[in-house]
Amino acid sequence: MASPAIEALVQQLARLPGLGPRSARRAVLHLIKRRETAFAPLLTALTAVHETLVTCQTCGNVDTSDPCGICADPRRDARSICVVEEVADLWALDRSRLFPGKYHVLGGKLSALDGVRPEDLAIEPLVRRVAAGGVDEVVLAMNATLEGQTTAHYITDRLEGLPVRLTQLAHGLPVGGELDYLDEGTLAQALRARRPVG
Amino acid sequence: MASPAIEALVQQLARLPGLGPRSARRAVLHLIKRRETAFAPLLTALTAVHETLVTCQTCGNVDTSDPCGICADPRRDARSICVVEEVADLWALDRSRLFPGKYHVLGGKLSALDGVRPEDLAIEPLVRRVAAGGVDEVVLAMNATLEGQTTAHYITDRLEGLPVRLTQLAHGLPVGGELDYLDEGTLAQALRARRPVG
Repeated sequence: MASPAIEALVQQLARLPGLGPRSARRAVLHLIKRRETAFAPLLTALTAVHETLVTCQTCGNVDTSDPCGICADPRRDARSICVVEEVADLWALDRSRLFPGKYHVLGGKLSALDGVRPEDLAIEPLVRRVAAGGVDEVVLAMNATLEGQTTAHYITDRLEGLPVRLTQLAHGLPVGGELDYLDEGTLAQALRARRPVG
Repeated sequence: MASPAIEALVQQLARLPGLGPRSARRAVLHLIKRRETAFAPLLTALTAVHETLVTCQTCGNVDTSDPCGICADPRRDARSICVVEEVADLWALDRSRLFPGKYHVLGGKLSALDGVRPEDLAIEPLVRRVAAGGVDEVVLAMNATLEGQTTAHYITDRLEGLPVRLTQLAHGLPVGGELDYLDEGTLAQALRARRPVG
């Protein structure tokens, strides 16, 4: 067995998603064999993030500054706000580089099962943000799940009466999706939302 | 996009074996969302290992003390030395808890292709360790590869004339191995080394 300190590190790493006990051990060995080229840089990067991590008070993004890089970026269009469930969704969308506006992270989704109520999510801050004016469009980018869509409906109700255009992500065939393998729900959505060609 | 500090951390994590860019990003999000319960303990564990990491001057194991925990353990039989290629092999064998002796890590295997010569491995220290006396058995636990077996042969030659018994790990069917799926080499080994029943 390795020393208690090394075993403790293996256990901590094994708790990361995507890593199990075996791969955590392999990762530790990788680090141990490359103390200067891999271990030190990883430790530096982790420390830097851990010390500066902060939640953006405006949009709920997690970043190393508050307001976050996106909220502070004057090139991004503040008139458009994309609402997402989690920070992970914000990152995923932003990697596509197709949305030029700002974001709003709810911090979850409404769920009767898990006891998540509207006041547990950043819905009120969103309403205030929109009511403050200067926002033309709110893109509802919840997951295409029952709970995600319930959350989207709730937000739609809450924003009613405010002078803002509400849109949602298109639902339909994923790129590369083969009809044969897709569920009926997706096919029904794709058929219902069919559009004229050309 | 996340901040440069977070992106740098994702890149460092993505270099670990078993993690790619996607899973590294997921791991970072996992840490960010659990700053106290996951991020802080991981950072503490990494720092502890990084600061105390040392190679055992006796056996080549990597541990947080020198001599390592195994070499320093008086309950382990110093008359038996198990020779392995890498620290990872030592850990793997030791997890089986079946070997009560000490180890010797070569730090690789002989390889004409990669230009690894005997003097690049800890073979001379092994010979000195055995020649110093007090060793009854040397278990050659190289990988069952061409290079591993070449290394084992070389060590056998080098230890010739020393009053020590040389053994090697058994080769044959792996536990759960189905003949149908095993390569001819393994089957040939298993057949050649067949033993009387009961």
